[in-house]
Amino acid sequence: METTRKPNYVEELLEIFRSPLSAEELRDQISDYHESDIADAFEQLSVEERKKLYPLLGAEWVAEIFSYIEDPDEYLQELNLDQAAKVLSFMDSDDAVDVLDELDDSTQEKLVGMLDEESSHDIKMIQSYEDDEVGSLMTTNFVVIHDTLTIRQAMRELIRQAGENDNISTVYVIDKDNRFYGAIDLKDLIIAREGTLLDDIVSTSYPYVTDHEKIDDCIEQIKDYAEDSIPVLTGEKELIGVITSQDLVEVVDDAMGEDYAKLAGLTAEEDLEETTKESMKKRLPWLMILLILGLGVSSVVGIFETVVAVIPVVMCFQSLILDMAGNVGTQSLAVTIRVLVDENLTGKQKVHLVIKEMRVGLLNGLFLGTLAFIFIGLYVWIFKQNPAPHAFVISGCVGLALMIAMVISSLVGTLIPMFFHKINVDPAVASGPLITTVNDLVAVVTYYGLVWILLIHVLHLVG
Amino acid sequence: METTRKPNYVEELLEIFRSPLSAEELRDQISDYHESDIADAFEQLSVEERKKLYPLLGAEWVAEIFSYIEDPDEYLQELNLDQAAKVLSFMDSDDAVDVLDELDDSTQEKLVGMLDEESSHDIKMIQSYEDDEVGSLMTTNFVVIHDTLTIRQAMRELIRQAGENDNISTVYVIDKDNRFYGAIDLKDLIIAREGTLLDDIVSTSYPYVTDHEKIDDCIEQIKDYAEDSIPVLTGEKELIGVITSQDLVEVVDDAMGEDYAKLAGLTAEEDLEETTKESMKKRLPWLMILLILGLGVSSVVGIFETVVAVIPVVMCFQSLILDMAGNVGTQSLAVTIRVLVDENLTGKQKVHLVIKEMRVGLLNGLFLGTLAFIFIGLYVWIFKQNPAPHAFVISGCVGLALMIAMVISSLVGTLIPMFFHKINVDPAVASGPLITTVNDLVAVVTYYGLVWILLIHVLHLVG
Repeated sequence: METTRKPNYVEELLEIFRSPLSAEELRDQISDYHESDIADAFEQLSVEERKKLYPLLGAEWVAEIFSYIEDPDEYLQELNLDQAAKVLSFMDSDDAVDVLDELDDSTQEKLVGMLDEESSHDIKMIQSYEDDEVGSLMTTNFVVIHDTLTIRQAMRELIRQAGENDNISTVYVIDKDNRFYGAIDLKDLIIAREGTLLDDIVSTSYPYVTDHEKIDDCIEQIKDYAEDSIPVLTGEKELIGVITSQDLVEVVDDAMGEDYAKLAGLTAEEDLEETTKESMKKRLPWLMILLILGLGVSSVVGIFETVVAVIPVVMCFQSLILDMAGNVGTQSLAVTIRVLVDENLTGKQKVHLVIKEMRVGLLNGLFLGTLAFIFIGLYVWIFKQNPAPHAFVISGCVGLALMIAMVISSLVGTLIPMFFHKINVDPAVASGPLITTVNDLVAVVTYYGLVWILLIHVLHLVG
Repeated sequence: METTRKPNYVEELLEIFRSPLSAEELRDQISDYHESDIADAFEQLSVEERKKLYPLLGAEWVAEIFSYIEDPDEYLQELNLDQAAKVLSFMDSDDAVDVLDELDDSTQEKLVGMLDEESSHDIKMIQSYEDDEVGSLMTTNFVVIHDTLTIRQAMRELIRQAGENDNISTVYVIDKDNRFYGAIDLKDLIIAREGTLLDDIVSTSYPYVTDHEKIDDCIEQIKDYAEDSIPVLTGEKELIGVITSQDLVEVVDDAMGEDYAKLAGLTAEEDLEETTKESMKKRLPWLMILLILGLGVSSVVGIFETVVAVIPVVMCFQSLILDMAGNVGTQSLAVTIRVLVDENLTGKQKVHLVIKEMRVGLLNGLFLGTLAFIFIGLYVWIFKQNPAPHAFVISGCVGLALMIAMVISSLVGTLIPMFFHKINVDPAVASGPLITTVNDLVAVVTYYGLVWILLIHVLHLVG
């Protein structure tokens, strides 16, 4: 049998959008596609084409399509205020907040004023949370029932609420005081027999997060539960929203992206659309700090000026030792940060990690130091035409300095992020420049120090 | 009202496990908790305590708990073969494959032989895919119905299948030839009125992936659909599995983690439990390459030995310029890799990115180069007691070299990953050491070259 080629849904949709179909036929055909594909096609239409489509699709459908567009605010502005308010009221409250945040204050105020009471209440509630709090991430789109219902009543209530709320895979249960009582897996509700008590299928010790918790603190835990949604409660155990797994994919993506960006010396993740000015703002802080610290290193190198003046060949290997130390430090830093983010380490585990990093640094250092000793010795002897003993003393200094620098870099690359983590400073932000500087200093002092002692003072080989 | 403290479910569960309850009461109490918490408590029990629990909970429940444990193979080995096979048959087929992969070949073979036909078929099918193919990631746990059913029949079929399959939020539909026909959102099925035709609620142009697609190639697309599950089809459009959003969280997490690790010069992500040997294996390849390339840089630096011998003070600023160039290159690299991974760039967008990176490099370079000119000039003049004109010519060289190095680093940090991406080599793996080397070379040649020309040949300030 021949392999069928994957269809291009977006192109199919563009054709449908641009064909002379009746409104009815158009709606019918489009309804077979996924909103994400419709959104992609939507973005490729002209403003005029879209303006014709909005009334045809209706506010609810447009709202659903907007939820798949990254910056729906530009499209929202193609609608008049009245239409825009209707679309907003159909959007998930957290998505609606994201859109509103992009609009100017007066439009924002006008739109919120035009929303129905429930939508505007939800939006104001979510806006009241700080960006790093769980509350800012939740949606009010979920199904909730009272604990006094029978299975049949619960099912009927689910059907009623499912029209408006599409996160139905977990049904939340509250008690008579409107406090969170537990959760029902929709599957259990669907397969429950008529006579079953609702209580039998409710998990009463269901996991939850509280609205003011920091997102960073509970994200790993939420991920572990692997649920489509996790309830968000107030301090008084009132159920006010849920965090969906889709929100989670975004947050995990963002969090890793941020760490990644920070490790690379950017203050935040960048994307393609950013202006030069924005990019500069994200990169300059790091570079400034590095420049200032670099000046400090330079003045330390200055101490060894006399050594280099006497044996210029040693300066050839400075960049080698510094690059290696820097790389080893970054490796330890990356491992330490991931471990600190992922797990709550006990003191013993921390000591274990430090020792392990040093051991890896030492063993790698021994190996690479030996290689450096052999090959650099040969190089200085043969290509630089130095006498053999002289050459191997120099390469010995390089090898030894390399090894010491690698051990210390491992140590520094582990301890500095741990220290910043301890004092609640983001280790991915603060560690980079400091580690580079400390490693440079250690490497330079070790290397030129060794050369100075061995070659000049002990062996009197030169001078 | 007082704020209620969040309960510690794991501790509560440990108490229940260790209390003298009857089997019935124990099961009843535990059923109120989430399997993720049960799994956490489970891991804290002794082997003996767990061995008592297994028969009490039954294979299905144990299977569900195991799906929340990172390495369930150790626990599976606490069961006899017969029990283990039963537990495996209740696990999601992709999870079962992961567990089996950890066991030795003979145990693996024995266990697969003891499974029921369906489970062993599913497991063999998933095992037949390469690790980077979509098929290796899918689960066979989903609900599928024929397109000829009525709404009522479909609902009944759902209830029947929901007992065994818990990914119910999308119901998949196949035609009479068993080919994929479309998908129904469970919500739409639940709220559908009696008379509705099934066809009206089926999305026939539903997104899907094919079994042999590379995971890396379709992950962004799957993420965009924001669905709880996406169907996996063969080339002949036969529905053989689904990818769930939970699998996706893991993959996104892993993929970002890998990129992050690679940027830091590790061949793969490490965690706390890894042995020193494993860590060395992940780190040495990079360091070896860097060492060899570093030797190349060293021999180029060697060319300028005579310059340094004449004006030793210039060597103080080598580390500064190299560190800055390295950092700028890493910034460009990180941005380029993220952009390449996230989006399919057109040629025009690529040119745009390169130009933007160079512009950012130039502007940052101008700014920092000027700072370096002023401060290093003052430093060499006042602290190193050089005559002022001499000092500012040196700092001018540093500033100019810094600026040129930063522009070229931006260019190199963008072009090299693009080149590797083009020839289908993972840019995060290959770019790092190459960029460091090229940047070092450019920085060293520019800096010492400038010093050589300006100070020695043009101004005759020294020598």
